Amino acid sequence: MNVLTSTPVVAKRVFVLAMTVGLLISSPSTSQPQRAQETAPVTTYPAQLSADLRKLQEAALSSDYAYRQLAHLTDSIGPRLSGSPQAAAAVEYIAKEMRRLGLEVKLEKLSVPHWVRGEETAALVRYPGQAEGTTQKIILTALGGSVPTAPDGLNAEVVVVNNFDELKALGRDKVAGKIVLFNARFDRQMAAEGFGGEAYGQAVAYRSGGASAAARLGAVAALNRSAGGAEFRLPHTGALRYPDDAPKIPAAAVTAEDGDLIARLAALGTVRMQLLLTPKQLPDAESYNVIADFKGSEHPEQIIIVSGHLDSWDLGTGAIDDGAGVVIAMQTVQLLKQLHLRPKRTIRFIAWMNEENGVVGGRTYAKDHAGEIANHFAAIESDRGAGHPLGFEVKGRPEVLPLLQPMSAILQTSGAGLLQITTGTETDISPLGTAGVPSFGLWQDTRTYFDYHHTAADTLDKVVPRELAENAAAMAVLAYTLANLPQPLPR
Amino acid sequence: MNVLTSTPVVAKRVFVLAMTVGLLISSPSTSQPQRAQETAPVTTYPAQLSADLRKLQEAALSSDYAYRQLAHLTDSIGPRLSGSPQAAAAVEYIAKEMRRLGLEVKLEKLSVPHWVRGEETAALVRYPGQAEGTTQKIILTALGGSVPTAPDGLNAEVVVVNNFDELKALGRDKVAGKIVLFNARFDRQMAAEGFGGEAYGQAVAYRSGGASAAARLGAVAALNRSAGGAEFRLPHTGALRYPDDAPKIPAAAVTAEDGDLIARLAALGTVRMQLLLTPKQLPDAESYNVIADFKGSEHPEQIIIVSGHLDSWDLGTGAIDDGAGVVIAMQTVQLLKQLHLRPKRTIRFIAWMNEENGVVGGRTYAKDHAGEIANHFAAIESDRGAGHPLGFEVKGRPEVLPLLQPMSAILQTSGAGLLQITTGTETDISPLGTAGVPSFGLWQDTRTYFDYHHTAADTLDKVVPRELAENAAAMAVLAYTLANLPQPLPR
Repeated sequence: MNVLTSTPVVAKRVFVLAMTVGLLISSPSTSQPQRAQETAPVTTYPAQLSADLRKLQEAALSSDYAYRQLAHLTDSIGPRLSGSPQAAAAVEYIAKEMRRLGLEVKLEKLSVPHWVRGEETAALVRYPGQAEGTTQKIILTALGGSVPTAPDGLNAEVVVVNNFDELKALGRDKVAGKIVLFNARFDRQMAAEGFGGEAYGQAVAYRSGGASAAARLGAVAALNRSAGGAEFRLPHTGALRYPDDAPKIPAAAVTAEDGDLIARLAALGTVRMQLLLTPKQLPDAESYNVIADFKGSEHPEQIIIVSGHLDSWDLGTGAIDDGAGVVIAMQTVQLLKQLHLRPKRTIRFIAWMNEENGVVGGRTYAKDHAGEIANHFAAIESDRGAGHPLGFEVKGRPEVLPLLQPMSAILQTSGAGLLQITTGTETDISPLGTAGVPSFGLWQDTRTYFDYHHTAADTLDKVVPRELAENAAAMAVLAYTLANLPQPLPR
Repeated sequence: MNVLTSTPVVAKRVFVLAMTVGLLISSPSTSQPQRAQETAPVTTYPAQLSADLRKLQEAALSSDYAYRQLAHLTDSIGPRLSGSPQAAAAVEYIAKEMRRLGLEVKLEKLSVPHWVRGEETAALVRYPGQAEGTTQKIILTALGGSVPTAPDGLNAEVVVVNNFDELKALGRDKVAGKIVLFNARFDRQMAAEGFGGEAYGQAVAYRSGGASAAARLGAVAALNRSAGGAEFRLPHTGALRYPDDAPKIPAAAVTAEDGDLIARLAALGTVRMQLLLTPKQLPDAESYNVIADFKGSEHPEQIIIVSGHLDSWDLGTGAIDDGAGVVIAMQTVQLLKQLHLRPKRTIRFIAWMNEENGVVGGRTYAKDHAGEIANHFAAIESDRGAGHPLGFEVKGRPEVLPLLQPMSAILQTSGAGLLQITTGTETDISPLGTAGVPSFGLWQDTRTYFDYHHTAADTLDKVVPRELAENAAAMAVLAYTLANLPQPLPR
């Protein structure tokens, strides 16, 4: 996930998550989610539907399909940043696999940003206590979309601030011509307690908005302390925003350790840095949302979307963000085929393109399909990793919850029975949610997610096969429920 | 620490450590170490000595001297690999600081290896499922002392083995012309339970001996899965051995994730790698052990060494390995000055050079001072990080323990009261121990040590100031006890 578009929502959601994780852990025998219970009366499903949902759940939990697909996406295809050959290969692969499963596949064309990482090196070249002939290496990574430095880099003093107020207090006199380091700490304790989204939301403000805030005061480059949980000298990339009212200056994330180092030295005296970043913003590239329909038997015009985003950052192989979401959604349609189940409404698989640095896929889809919004019965996306699922968060009317209570009761047998109304939803389906489509975010335990998110360490080994299968079960059961629900969803 | 010279010893020590950590945790009221109790009768110390030891302990625990010294060594001076300008600056700085404290300083000249890291890049260029025009980046770091590849790198198939038996089973036919990856896992569970040294000992065999074992079968390069605990795409460097009977081939450590990736792909089919390593072995450099004597009042000819090693690997700033050991030893003499305590025997501070890749400092000292071994009353070194100290491990006669029991009782009030006979000791003082000098290794909790050891993440933030002070207290109290012990130590 990126958080340029959804910070407050993620923060709020994960706050609730932490409370409910605690609830589940302390009362493992609780079989019904609190919120669904509150909104009685309870619906009952046709016996065949309930039986089919249990079969789907069981088949998902004993399948390694999602994991095998994820291994291919990450190990063989690799990082999938928009515009890259790997992203193109992933589009082609997913389309082929969906066709192999017997689905109708459409590639809906997009024009996506094509930013390519270059060299990225930095060293402190002047600092208190420095020994003759030495420098201190700084480990950093360019933020996605950053403009480059001059080809031979730039050399400037570094000023350290912990927040926007401190930047403002410094003022133009002390910022102009300098490199600004936003050294805001990611709150690891908060994340360990289950509030990862909230901790991320706090830290990411400096990644997304720091460069422009610094540039408005004349800074020549901006650095942010990595917005992430682990401290293993691991920089976390991510997108930044360049609003029109500020000069575009180069921006990079330093590791937590390097943020500390610079701050300690700057507290003792003047610190100068030599910084080289040579990313390139190439012309926009042609790419695609991969769309595959499993046609409904009774209401083929009514659509339930199952989805994840196919693009990833370039440093790791995009296993948890968001290869996992894509393969979880793939497994929904694979299981229907395997079990010979035909939904009454159409289940539409979508692998979104360009969630990370533009959301072109999600926005274009909503625009291109604006005339069919009424036929979009619901949209589901998974974009919070592959940790144990707790249930779903719902952007929609509270009256939706009791209709789904029997489904939640089934998912609760694998620990995924929570349903919770929220005000936002996953990035790619957010435009649909805003247009009134009931939208469901798969709700994972994210306690370690922000340790790896947007780093070189977002790799297949971070995914526990059993947890991935639990997620696949949750999405398949919800999607099939929605596709076969006797009544429409209130909206 | 490096483990080319002391693997089995470290493994055994940490096994004992784990047991005793468990003992302490489960019985926090136990005030005497088990082994010391077993070897009654108990010595008593003169009242003045006991009072002075308590003052030393208290002063150390309330001092930030060691931490401030460590901040300078790591933040301002930086990585201190033998032969580097930073190592030279560190020698100069420590000598100056010891003179400032009023000690007699001698720089004892050494000729040390001067190996310099170069470019290090790798990518898989052929593998199952590969998409056209793509490669998979591999993160690795050259092992210290590695020879380079050709200037434009090498391109070869990778074969994966988990141990030396599997390599042998492949034989020359399947190894010649290939890159061998030793993918032996570091046992993280074992480390988390306190057996880090044992886990490291198992894994490091492939780092130190893998290249030559592979080269004997015609391999063109060797890779080892990083010998360390954390999985954040973080490679762990360290020294390798090139025995005379094998060709020297380039060698590097891949991260745990990259080891996994290569192994998974190789299980599916042929994997080829493009590997570039351009380190240089420069002519040996002149360097020094820094030696500073605090002369004894009654037996100035009798010497107690307090020490750590000043050199470090080049990826991080050498905070836990072993800047911590140096500043812990510095604080012993600083505290004696601060408290106006004069030892009866001479306390000799030594900052050893070149522990990591040659042990030239420790070996040269033992050789140059061979005629004075009888006057070396005891030697102490700290080289297992800066975690909470549990006590000391002793290479010496069991009769030593009861003589130190009153000292242990004092240290036990800060949790560092264990004394344990072992068969080996820290690397730099090992030649003295072999020559019969009673030798003491400061015995830290190493449960996270191997996560950071020999990586870019060995930085100041990994050191907890309170724990560093506990270590300084332990070394000062032991050193002053030995310097004032009424009787000689059995040897």
